[in-house]
Amino acid sequence: MSNPTGNRPDASRRNFLKVGLIGSAALAGGLVSGRAAAAGDPAITEIKDWNRFSGEGVDARPYGTPSEFESGVVRRSVPWLTADPISSVNFTPLHELEGIITPNGLCFERHHAGIAVIDPAEHRLMINGLVEQPLVFTMADLKRFPRENRVYFLECAANSGMEWRGAQLNGCQYTHGMVHCVMYTGVRLKDILNEAGVKPAGTWLLAEGADASAMGRSIPMEKALDDCMVAFAMNGEALRPEQGYPLRLVVPGWEGNMWIKWLRRLEVGDQPWQLREETSKYTDLLPSGKARRFTFTMEVKSVITNPSPQAPIVHGKGATVLSGLAWSGNGTIKRVDVSLDGGRNWHAARIDGPSLPRALHRFYYEFDWDGSELFLQSRAMDEQGYVQPTKDELRAARGENTIYHNNGIQTWHVNPDGVVENVEIS
Amino acid sequence: MSNPTGNRPDASRRNFLKVGLIGSAALAGGLVSGRAAAAGDPAITEIKDWNRFSGEGVDARPYGTPSEFESGVVRRSVPWLTADPISSVNFTPLHELEGIITPNGLCFERHHAGIAVIDPAEHRLMINGLVEQPLVFTMADLKRFPRENRVYFLECAANSGMEWRGAQLNGCQYTHGMVHCVMYTGVRLKDILNEAGVKPAGTWLLAEGADASAMGRSIPMEKALDDCMVAFAMNGEALRPEQGYPLRLVVPGWEGNMWIKWLRRLEVGDQPWQLREETSKYTDLLPSGKARRFTFTMEVKSVITNPSPQAPIVHGKGATVLSGLAWSGNGTIKRVDVSLDGGRNWHAARIDGPSLPRALHRFYYEFDWDGSELFLQSRAMDEQGYVQPTKDELRAARGENTIYHNNGIQTWHVNPDGVVENVEIS
Repeated sequence: MSNPTGNRPDASRRNFLKVGLIGSAALAGGLVSGRAAAAGDPAITEIKDWNRFSGEGVDARPYGTPSEFESGVVRRSVPWLTADPISSVNFTPLHELEGIITPNGLCFERHHAGIAVIDPAEHRLMINGLVEQPLVFTMADLKRFPRENRVYFLECAANSGMEWRGAQLNGCQYTHGMVHCVMYTGVRLKDILNEAGVKPAGTWLLAEGADASAMGRSIPMEKALDDCMVAFAMNGEALRPEQGYPLRLVVPGWEGNMWIKWLRRLEVGDQPWQLREETSKYTDLLPSGKARRFTFTMEVKSVITNPSPQAPIVHGKGATVLSGLAWSGNGTIKRVDVSLDGGRNWHAARIDGPSLPRALHRFYYEFDWDGSELFLQSRAMDEQGYVQPTKDELRAARGENTIYHNNGIQTWHVNPDGVVENVEIS
Repeated sequence: MSNPTGNRPDASRRNFLKVGLIGSAALAGGLVSGRAAAAGDPAITEIKDWNRFSGEGVDARPYGTPSEFESGVVRRSVPWLTADPISSVNFTPLHELEGIITPNGLCFERHHAGIAVIDPAEHRLMINGLVEQPLVFTMADLKRFPRENRVYFLECAANSGMEWRGAQLNGCQYTHGMVHCVMYTGVRLKDILNEAGVKPAGTWLLAEGADASAMGRSIPMEKALDDCMVAFAMNGEALRPEQGYPLRLVVPGWEGNMWIKWLRRLEVGDQPWQLREETSKYTDLLPSGKARRFTFTMEVKSVITNPSPQAPIVHGKGATVLSGLAWSGNGTIKRVDVSLDGGRNWHAARIDGPSLPRALHRFYYEFDWDGSELFLQSRAMDEQGYVQPTKDELRAARGENTIYHNNGIQTWHVNPDGVVENVEIS
């Protein structure tokens, strides 16, 4: 039992380190749950002697990188989706992720003129318009205001947009991967607006980016003074270039396009600016020909990330972990239900980890798969009682012209081999 | 006010984008708090026209990296501290970080034989010893057990160890940078031990790593069955190689050396193994010649990260943000006090962001600096009422032989130029 020799196992112990190959034969060996092999199982192979070799030391990577075995865990774009990568999107690999924090290197990107390269020492943020005193802030100036730290999801209004017209893209990375969730650090937008002094007539705010598209959006002053942040850090470190380094607007729960990156100017006005991104884009064209505008909140939504088309079931029958993400621009998630049969029967999923307002929530449903085909669905409810609708309910209300604000229930079909496909059932 | 042309500011607007150089002259201009310059200030410079150039597109970096302007934000080692980088440590740059989440690439490393390179498809975890059924798990096997997601700090028992004998290292990266905090995802250790069936005599657990040092530690079964995890992910993605990829033990609140990386074996026994790392190392040698052993919990601690020797005050007098981190192996942090005068007067700091048990807490204290010298200290209290001691109180209790478990109050001296040094006052 005891190991008086300390760190180095002796030869006889080393011999004992034989492992069972996991396969149907081994799984039939009478174990409690079939989730491990008995040590000393007949189907054995010598364990790899990783410990015969010293590895790289602490100076090898001053800024660390993922394992070489994780090289497939990357953001991916869909080449046919856009004409040029500088005005395009890549997608978060949701099926590869755990928990609720998205690593900075895997947060989806959406640009309109590529990634601006900005020296933070030269960057300035101006506040002008209907204010008592127009101001210009350096990055150092901003860091003299009180800071706050908040975990928020950011979802593009066009996330799942291709699915309005039926199942299109085979993988949650592509159907739902325009969402990420990080901890932001920055200053309250309210505080710097107060520093400039918003005049009573100031009811709208223009936020403008320093990229080549000069991305701009109009934001109601009520939201600006509520919970918006001017953020300079994500997940503890400086914003990444593709996320607006050195400064971005954080507009909790609202569509990602409003979270202006490379933020350089805030103008206070008395009406919205009617910019391209809030008129011809990011509006929902209804069957009547009229458009829903200024529908800022990203409503309650969820998706099963495992199993999913890029993450099939490879272990066969038995104990299976279903995992997914849920979120709502209205606050926390109170409940997630999961169906294995396309919505006929629902089971309460288990929400695990911190439950933070306007942040991703991780849910699980553990079940014994009998090997029959499945139609997997998840349905979230937020703290305000909103329940995620079906895609058909969305279409009945808004038609099929739009690509924005699709929070409909997603269906994955699992065949008896564990292969998963994006399908739609009515 | 309005901008009917949409995205592109016209020439007159562009002309208006002149910014004030921030300096003492500009700051004396009568602004509310001196934290910004008036737009149109006489000391102006043309804004950089970042927006004349399109940037890289979405396919440039499938896995993103920090801005080139952040190249100084890295882990650093102290060359004279150890004989060889494969048995050494580098340090988290705490003075560069925000919030409570440490980015994976900046989590400190501590190895005893370098970074093991392990193919997860070939990796195995064995449970043997006093169990009903010895078992061997593949990574895929483990992922069939229920998962949980928890944010925990991990602190090396030797963090701040050099400071026992007085102020030594000039920077919180070196004095306190053997701590990091991430969200772990994994399975409960309890669940896989139950799968093997721990025999009644099983009161201790040996955890053993697959690196060339075969790092091993003895863990009381009570802790193993309480909140320990076998984790495969950190901050949403697979563990980093230097953090034990593909599998590490998580021992919440306890000293980092016990969080065995590259975890390959768990042996159940009826007494501790008396390994090197729990006898000649990670024990506190008292003046009497006797040693404190098995002092696993990392007690309540805090440090001011800004200002600090690597992060001096460069903005001169006026509005100043003091920021720091606090943590306790006993649970959440209930209170942090800050002193500007070496402990004579204390002020309640503001704790911001999620307050999670056994996780880092971020605190702030905003004050107007009058330009006089400061002796900065922070003192944390945890939910169990434990209060961080002074270094002198620790020395009175334990002498100066040890390098472990120093949770004493740190002092930074700020001179009138804003330069900060590690000092000690009695």
